[in-house]
Amino acid sequence: MRRTRFDADHCPIARATDLLADWWTPLVLREAFTGTRRFADFEANLDIPKAVLSARLSRLCDEGLLRREPYQDNPVRHEYRLTDKGRALWDVLAAMWRWGTDWCWPAGEGPVIALESRATGQVVRPVVVDEATGERLDIRSIRIGSNPNPHVR
Amino acid sequence: MRRTRFDADHCPIARATDLLADWWTPLVLREAFTGTRRFADFEANLDIPKAVLSARLSRLCDEGLLRREPYQDNPVRHEYRLTDKGRALWDVLAAMWRWGTDWCWPAGEGPVIALESRATGQVVRPVVVDEATGERLDIRSIRIGSNPNPHVR
Repeated sequence: MRRTRFDADHCPIARATDLLADWWTPLVLREAFTGTRRFADFEANLDIPKAVLSARLSRLCDEGLLRREPYQDNPVRHEYRLTDKGRALWDVLAAMWRWGTDWCWPAGEGPVIALESRATGQVVRPVVVDEATGERLDIRSIRIGSNPNPHVR
Repeated sequence: MRRTRFDADHCPIARATDLLADWWTPLVLREAFTGTRRFADFEANLDIPKAVLSARLSRLCDEGLLRREPYQDNPVRHEYRLTDKGRALWDVLAAMWRWGTDWCWPAGEGPVIALESRATGQVVRPVVVDEATGERLDIRSIRIGSNPNPHVR
């Protein structure tokens, strides 16, 4: 159930919110990022009602974050794969992971799981930086200005 | 209205979702990050119903992202300021900003606003990297493992 649409807004956060505030959506995406592709696997891993899962997957396809691909003929069954647009949202989930890890457990406690590098096994701690300078983003040193070139990504 | 709580989950994304999926919350935080502190200003800038705004601000205080501080005595009025926990969520909103900018406008178009450095005026493009290596996060090179030290942030 969606109460308001922010799509008309000029703000990129508002457009992302319009999608992420759909209940369950970030967790469906988390599953996709960790390799889940089939309806029954999403359902089992998330313990989510079928109708809700079906609605979330359909919307993620409509918005171009997932695409449906047949993996079986008779009967036809589909799996759900991330598109480039969907894969790009990993940065948002990674930032959520870091913030949740740092701030959403009581003092002296933390999650029993961590992100780790497949290559080295080292813990990966996501952090947001400016692409040009590599420096941490400090909200106090940033303002919202006009986009010098809104026609280029 | 909240339908399910994910707080019991072990996943940091689930805990962040529990907060961010509250409708309007990311936009209330965006306002706080851009300097809005007073109820009437949040209301005017967001065009949000009073009761909804009041509920969102109360929850953000309860969760420790905002704190209420009196700015006037008679009658007593409060303003809402970001805590360290709230300020840390900027990384998540910055990642949402980038993804929204890159993917939520039609091809050849983009938002008319951009983040820019107060010091240099240069456009700031948030990107998520591994804190230890400074490298971009690629979901395919990361897995979820056990946290070697869940008692340290």
